[in-house]
Formats: sequence, structure tokens, C-alpha cells
Amino acid sequence: MFEQLGLIGCGLMGGSFALALKRAGLVKRVVGYSKSPSTTSQARQLGVIDVEAPSALLAVAGADIVLLAVPVSATEATFKSIKHLITPQTLVMDVGSTKRDVVDAARRALREQVGSFVPAHPITGKEVSGVEHADPDLYIGKHVILTPIERTMPRQIQQATEVWTALGCNVVQMTPESHDAAFAAVSHLPHLIAFAMMQSLLTQPNGAEYLRLAGPGFRDFTRIAASDPHMWRDILVANREELLTQTQHFRRALEHLEQLIDRQDGDALEDLIAQASDARADWRMVSFKPQK
Amino acid sequence: MFEQLGLIGCGLMGGSFALALKRAGLVKRVVGYSKSPSTTSQARQLGVIDVEAPSALLAVAGADIVLLAVPVSATEATFKSIKHLITPQTLVMDVGSTKRDVVDAARRALREQVGSFVPAHPITGKEVSGVEHADPDLYIGKHVILTPIERTMPRQIQQATEVWTALGCNVVQMTPESHDAAFAAVSHLPHLIAFAMMQSLLTQPNGAEYLRLAGPGFRDFTRIAASDPHMWRDILVANREELLTQTQHFRRALEHLEQLIDRQDGDALEDLIAQASDARADWRMVSFKPQK
Repeated sequence: MFEQLGLIGCGLMGGSFALALKRAGLVKRVVGYSKSPSTTSQARQLGVIDVEAPSALLAVAGADIVLLAVPVSATEATFKSIKHLITPQTLVMDVGSTKRDVVDAARRALREQVGSFVPAHPITGKEVSGVEHADPDLYIGKHVILTPIERTMPRQIQQATEVWTALGCNVVQMTPESHDAAFAAVSHLPHLIAFAMMQSLLTQPNGAEYLRLAGPGFRDFTRIAASDPHMWRDILVANREELLTQTQHFRRALEHLEQLIDRQDGDALEDLIAQASDARADWRMVSFKPQK
Repeated sequence: MFEQLGLIGCGLMGGSFALALKRAGLVKRVVGYSKSPSTTSQARQLGVIDVEAPSALLAVAGADIVLLAVPVSATEATFKSIKHLITPQTLVMDVGSTKRDVVDAARRALREQVGSFVPAHPITGKEVSGVEHADPDLYIGKHVILTPIERTMPRQIQQATEVWTALGCNVVQMTPESHDAAFAAVSHLPHLIAFAMMQSLLTQPNGAEYLRLAGPGFRDFTRIAASDPHMWRDILVANREELLTQTQHFRRALEHLEQLIDRQDGDALEDLIAQASDARADWRMVSFKPQK
């Protein structure tokens, strides 16, 4: 289907995409670039990429499909550096966890070439990062959210949909705004709270002692607090408007529960907990069987 | 070691204790009582108890070891109803998640017999409740916190320590106050936050739509929100002072992070996230090999 993947950022997400694309027989060769030359070199040694490029621009030279898998704050500079080699025939995608800022960066940096870019957010990841954890199965059975804008070309949207579907993903289209609102609520806020929970313990004199007594509930609740600081700083700042709207909602819900606890209004408290408990018990993570 | 266990409350925690005690050969017979006669009957049919008692008092008649496994709000009334059959030779324990209120209830209700009571909190549980999920392995490899008071008799503390150790537990002694402060921080606050997180979504017009997009991070973060509403209403109200102290700490930590996000102070934000992430990555749930 494609001649050459230009991979910018050979980490977990990018490396896994390259491996999956190759395994599916969808690309002939992968030319990769990472900010750190040792990562690029490691990616080639691991067979994740075929050729090391010394710059993002050279990774894109000759590529008919380009994947940006860099921290979202690096998106605009990366687009600027590769713009001259993007044509109306190229399919360009990213894997960023926020979409409004990425779309804005694409408009500013790609200008008349912005139509080749299909913003993408695969809902997957691992606790670990780095090309050594790249995994061709990472995307199987997962959602990928595409957030095209008016100028995105139909051909590229079609290609993007086909590529992710071929990798075993369920493709969902949303506006960048709806995407960011939804993920502020179900991903960015939980991460922020998990970070705040750990900070709350770290700043208490007895916090370390308390931590020693924590059990399995705490383990699962705080698992996402171990996420990558640089990546998450970018996400939280990039999506700050929607995120701070969500913290308002959360704060109101917390205050309401606190008031009932303070008043020892057990019945009203039990009602709210029962609503929360039922909603969580009924919730199922959407999963599906990928098309074979 | 014991002639007869008087089990008051034949649910998950109580039923599992009875099964474990019998399997370890530590008790000859189990007389059980539950508020709901059908539960008591089911417990006997499942072999969790040997004899059904029609009242808590009759479950205690002839018992040299008594376990209260009832919602913490039922503790005082239960103690009152069994007080007359508690002797200085009886070992009485509970399994409640809060300890200061239980100790206060014991002082008021048991009076001169309070020395026979060893307050206990096994750090274990399941997502499901009910005697049908009773499991003799539930306590293996877990911490049990004992919170004796000045009047608790050394013989009973010794016996309690031996029983839980024989069931495969690691026994830790703390004051009721230290226990409640620690568990407010690492258990009760996380539960409250998880309930608030679900409420925050339920009260938003687009909440249901957002929920459909939630992934594995959300799944683990909110797992404890599915906990039993009646049990948790009791815990949150019983430990409200320590819990509301913890919500203050948490709120300050959250506000600090929010301010940095609002100011787009990426570096300071990344520092705090890195502290949280490192602390979580370094944390290990204390576990141990039970003595054989």
C-alpha cells in the first residue's frame, strides 16, 4: 500500500506503528528519525526502522506516509521542519493525546499543505516508554480517534481509516474540540488527580508511613501516576481549558460528597455513592474484535 | 485452639474467616448469625457455619472466640446485644475499616468487658460481597492491623496475634488514631475521589458519551468506585475527621498543580509530576510469605 514510512520519533508509539505496518505488509521500508541519535540507532538495530535519517526532513524525503510520534509540544517545530517535502499525495498523521493544539500547530506550520494531515489519537499505551518496548500488537483492538478539519483531504481521511483498520483498530471520527473535551474528562483529569494524590502524600510528614500501609485499591487508583512526566506536562498544559473545566465539575462533585459526610447525612451520601458505584459497575471498556 | 466461633455477620469477610479458621483446624464448630435469615441459612448450606443462630446473642453463647463482621455502623448495637455473654476468657474481634469509632462503641457498649475486645482491620477484600464469595484464602499474605487500647487484655492481644498469624497474615499493631489517619489517606480518600469522579461524569450532559471513550487508565483509576455503597457510607462518615483533613491536603496539591497548568509553567509542573511519578514507580505494596 505504501512505499516508505517516514517515522519521526522512534519511541513506544512510533516504533510500534512501524512494526505493525511492516508486519501487515503495508509498507516497503521505514526511514526513522529521533531527536536522540542513539534512539534512532537502537531502532535500526531492533529492526523497528530500516534506515536512520539524520533529520526529520530527511526521514520524510521519499515518504508517502509520515507519522509524527513526538511530544505534543514538539509538533509545530517538527511540522515546520518537514513542510517542504509534504505534498498533496502524502499522508501525514500524529499520535498525540490532545488534538486542538496539534491542529492549530498544523494550520500554522503546514499552511497550504495542512490538507495532507490527518490528526490521530490511538487510545493505547504502556506503563513503559522507549523503542525497546515497541510492540506490533500495541494497536490491536484499540480505538483510534481521527479529528480531521474542513481542509483535510478526503483521500487522506480514507487512507488513514484504512491503515488503522488494517492494524486492527476501531476508527472513530470526532472534531478536535469534542476529542479534547472527552479526554479531559476521562483521561487528563484522572491523571491530574493521580499526580495530586501522590503529591498530597509526599507533602505530609507521615506520608511515607501511610504509603507503607496502602493496599490493592491504592495500587490501581494511582497506577497512572507513574506516567511519563514530560509527556503529561505537555498534555495537561495543551488541553488546559478543557481540563480546568473538568476540575470544576470534579471539585463540585467532591464538595457535595464532603458536605454530606460533614453533616453525617448517611442516606443522601449512600444514594450518591450508589449512583457512582452502579455507573462504574455497569461501565465496560469498549473493545471489539479487529477485522481479519 | 478454640472450641466455638461465634460469627456475627456471615458475609464475605466473616464467612472467609470461618472457612480459614476451620481449614487451619483452629476451631471445632462455628455458630453463625446474620441479620438476614436467608444469609445465615445459605452460610450453613455452604458449610461456612455449622449451626444457625437466631440472634447475635445466641451465636455468642458458648463461644470462646467471637468475630463481628458487620457494617461499622452496626457495631455498637451488636456489642450491646452480646455483652452479657462476653467473659474475660472470650476473644472478641471485629474486621471494620475504621477503628476509632469501633473502639468508642466498644467502650460504651461493652463497659467492663471491653478488655476482651481486640479491634482488628484485615487489609483485604473483594469487588464482590456475600457469603457465596467467602474464600478461605482471602486473608493469606495480607496485613492485619490490631488497634488495642489500654484496657485490652494482653492475653487477648496474644491470642489475636496468633490467630491471624496462623491464617497467614502479617500482624501490625497501631493506635486506633494512627490507623484512622493512615487509612483516611491511602484508602478512604481514594474511594471518595473515585466516587466523586463518577459523579462528576454523571452530572455532565455529555458524561455518558465521554465514558464510552474511556480506556484502561480510567478503568483502573475508578475500579474502587464500584465498591459497596452501604459499607462505604459508614466508613466515610465514621472517619470523617481524618478524611476531611485528607481532602484538605489533596485539595491543596490539586490547586497547586492547577495553578501551574493555568500559568502554563511547564517546568514547575513537570517537576511536580516527576516527583509524583517517581514516588509511585518506587512504591511497592508490602507483601510477604506467610509462615507455614
